[in-house]
Amino acid sequence: MRLLGLDPGLRITGWGIIDIDGNRMSYIADGAIKTNAKLPLAERLVQLYEGIEEVIKRFGPIEAAVEETFVNKNPNSTLKLGQARGVVMLTPARAGLNVCEYTPNQVKKTVVGAGHAQKEQVQMMVKTLLPAAKIENADAADALAVAICHAQHRNTPDKWGALK
Amino acid sequence: MRLLGLDPGLRITGWGIIDIDGNRMSYIADGAIKTNAKLPLAERLVQLYEGIEEVIKRFGPIEAAVEETFVNKNPNSTLKLGQARGVVMLTPARAGLNVCEYTPNQVKKTVVGAGHAQKEQVQMMVKTLLPAAKIENADAADALAVAICHAQHRNTPDKWGALK
Repeated sequence: MRLLGLDPGLRITGWGIIDIDGNRMSYIADGAIKTNAKLPLAERLVQLYEGIEEVIKRFGPIEAAVEETFVNKNPNSTLKLGQARGVVMLTPARAGLNVCEYTPNQVKKTVVGAGHAQKEQVQMMVKTLLPAAKIENADAADALAVAICHAQHRNTPDKWGALK
Repeated sequence: MRLLGLDPGLRITGWGIIDIDGNRMSYIADGAIKTNAKLPLAERLVQLYEGIEEVIKRFGPIEAAVEETFVNKNPNSTLKLGQARGVVMLTPARAGLNVCEYTPNQVKKTVVGAGHAQKEQVQMMVKTLLPAAKIENADAADALAVAICHAQHRNTPDKWGALK
């Protein structure tokens, strides 16, 4: 079973694909979708949508997990992140994937064992759990961490909310 | 030339369609897209996307205008609104429409003549400018006001940003 993890951002959205087979996890691919900051917002959101759509078409994941946005103290940053996140949630749902959400603390706790782990610890654990991963940037590493978190929690009964 | 105005919200997104011919404006349609609060966020965003897509297919507008979100003091509300707004900006852009943004003050100033007009004044002016409008709710009225604002400002050179 193939899973897609997504770490949303308007400038950069990280993505990571893993396969799970029982308790075994294996790395398939990771990367980042970048939008052109010189374009109007609507065009950037289209770039984001099409980038995620391409990843889904190419790798065929059947479930997606998205990191719940950290609510910033700056309302304009929160709004920007929210706009990107809306598109990041929408795209896999439109492609027919079930979409789960996890908080950064859930991701860290699952991957590292501590809810307040540092970014470097998360990346190190991602590398340990997925030795084949060629992690190119921090956003892709975060996205793989979200996918790993989903692999551990996807059978938790309340996770799908009203979907099931 | 047909214009689509949109007033974004996760629970309710208002929409309004007007035609412009030189300085003449005429009312075509308005309504609201409601999402089911019991569904997971990703599914609600799909409902929003499909609702806007249907309006675009049915009425064939060639330009869209979206109200810039009021930045709330509650970060969670801002985030929710941002997510809806991302989808509301994306949908017409993916359909090939140019998408403009206007602040609530720009809309009020254009429609009523005062940036701090009350909601009721905006609705009354929408009704005066578009006598044929059968406005069914406040969100649809706001969306028509955004469309009227765009009709007045669409030729302002800097409005399209990097698009032109």
